[in-house]
Amino acid sequence: MAAQKNRQIVLASRPEGEPRPENFRLVESDLGTAGEGQLLLKTLWLSLDPYMRGRISAAKSYARGVEPGEVMVGGTVSEVVASNNPRFAAGDIVSSYSGWQEFELSDGKALQKLDSKAAPVSTALGVLGMPGMTAYAGLLTIGQPKEGETVVVAAASGPVGSAVGQIAKIKGCRTVGIAGGADKVRYLIDELGFDAALDRRDPDLKAKLAAACPKGIDVYFENVGGEVWDAVFPLLNNFARIPVCGLIAHYNDTEAPAGPDKTTRLMRAILTKRLTIRGFIVTDFADQAAAFRRDMGQWLQEGKIKHREDVVDGLAAAPEAFIGMLKGKNFGKLLVRVAR
Amino acid sequence: MAAQKNRQIVLASRPEGEPRPENFRLVESDLGTAGEGQLLLKTLWLSLDPYMRGRISAAKSYARGVEPGEVMVGGTVSEVVASNNPRFAAGDIVSSYSGWQEFELSDGKALQKLDSKAAPVSTALGVLGMPGMTAYAGLLTIGQPKEGETVVVAAASGPVGSAVGQIAKIKGCRTVGIAGGADKVRYLIDELGFDAALDRRDPDLKAKLAAACPKGIDVYFENVGGEVWDAVFPLLNNFARIPVCGLIAHYNDTEAPAGPDKTTRLMRAILTKRLTIRGFIVTDFADQAAAFRRDMGQWLQEGKIKHREDVVDGLAAAPEAFIGMLKGKNFGKLLVRVAR
Repeated sequence: MAAQKNRQIVLASRPEGEPRPENFRLVESDLGTAGEGQLLLKTLWLSLDPYMRGRISAAKSYARGVEPGEVMVGGTVSEVVASNNPRFAAGDIVSSYSGWQEFELSDGKALQKLDSKAAPVSTALGVLGMPGMTAYAGLLTIGQPKEGETVVVAAASGPVGSAVGQIAKIKGCRTVGIAGGADKVRYLIDELGFDAALDRRDPDLKAKLAAACPKGIDVYFENVGGEVWDAVFPLLNNFARIPVCGLIAHYNDTEAPAGPDKTTRLMRAILTKRLTIRGFIVTDFADQAAAFRRDMGQWLQEGKIKHREDVVDGLAAAPEAFIGMLKGKNFGKLLVRVAR
Repeated sequence: MAAQKNRQIVLASRPEGEPRPENFRLVESDLGTAGEGQLLLKTLWLSLDPYMRGRISAAKSYARGVEPGEVMVGGTVSEVVASNNPRFAAGDIVSSYSGWQEFELSDGKALQKLDSKAAPVSTALGVLGMPGMTAYAGLLTIGQPKEGETVVVAAASGPVGSAVGQIAKIKGCRTVGIAGGADKVRYLIDELGFDAALDRRDPDLKAKLAAACPKGIDVYFENVGGEVWDAVFPLLNNFARIPVCGLIAHYNDTEAPAGPDKTTRLMRAILTKRLTIRGFIVTDFADQAAAFRRDMGQWLQEGKIKHREDVVDGLAAAPEAFIGMLKGKNFGKLLVRVAR
């Protein structure tokens, strides 16, 4: 097996505030050859997701960060080009965690073979992958939506939010989505069947959210924070549940947030309304993967769940696309088509 | 049945900040006579509890408040003086919710007969009553302490905190208590068997709490807030659970607390550490009452749970005792002996 040239995007420097293109660097290197048990993967699709902002921050989070000089991490759908591993053969399509690069030498661990006849393979990075599973497990396990309740989700046209809203509809809830811009708001209503949708930039967001939730809010799936959280907060019903999945409005914050001494109003509401606020990341619910694949696969087949992809072409486009995503520029699951 | 003179303490005016004696007024009135199905109760013991501060505040909480001119609410242990109700006979001792008064005409609903041979009847207001049940249900249901974990509780010499710590010990946890003053700290260690105890007024509270929790904090039973919450916060482990039962450090606050826009650090910790923060009040767990009575009764008999009462004499002493309790002056379950 001949040495393979590889192109990678590495972290050049840690961003302060909004990431800039110069925080990333495209490098070319020699990949080496596949050793015993190894296989050579060619990246077809690279997933860009908000959690990556946490990985390149100096602040401690739930996973090890990317150090300057290291390849950016990320989920991928890849093709097996050559294999010294009996579990995989050239031509297999797999989901992987190869990161922002065109090729990877893999030991075969943590790869999942994909059936390209069952669903487009890119869905393994979206509605049938990590974002869909995040929505499914977080909403059902922590949110526990009951028929007739009101469920609010922000970033609602994104891969997690759109799945949260549609699963809530399947469970018989009134579903209210918040998204950035009129086109996304229309999409939530016209395509995804949300009961109401609001533009997060609307200066009357608080009043309009209250009008859209005449019976208050029973589940708020938190993946945004900021002004959306402010608008949701006074509308929370007794015994409301708040799965905390992300805080994208704050990922580029440079000022240290106020400490717990400033949380009294929230804590008082938690007490008097008996709220449940619980953080999670998708891997906490790994034991639900089979149930997720069964349910989500069926809902997709039945047309009960729709999804939308936002595709950019070529590995070199990844930094700009990632920076834009943190500002809400993507419309649907953001994917980089690294190779065909 | 002759008309009965009654003495009551009514709310004279809503306190601003710390309640003052003039916010309460002792009045004498004519009780009337027991009608059909009614019974006349004589208050033996009146329970004074922190939640009462919320009832006399103008702020909305989980229960209807006491309006100026109305009798203060509160749990009591009472003797049946006369009965037109077939379920009760003169001489019966019952737990009731008669409030701050010497007598009450009751319809018999929500009364529980007490067996004075099984336990001193005052325990129905403490370790075998609402405070004990609050500790039991909140710690076990929300806190879910596991053997070897570290459980921290504040106001730890009080009726809720002392039960939380001792139940945590029974469950095999390292138990760390925080209380106000050296005598209470000694009591936690010497009498109740806490593994460590700290004075909340210690200027080195943060460092000493960190030293007392070398493996971090898995369960923080929140009934205080303020500086204790600040000290606990950085020590919370991943997947920590925080039953929110009370915020006594804030009950006399006059400034409106900061809004949810100031909660980012907390929300970020909830996310990255996958914390569970859940508010509750004891009546949410009414279905656990039988299990509570069984377990707590057995632990008391076995000497695994100890408790302490702080008794003041005469209804007229209730306002001062209540005001002092909000400053932590009581030592143990605060009771007013209204009659013998």
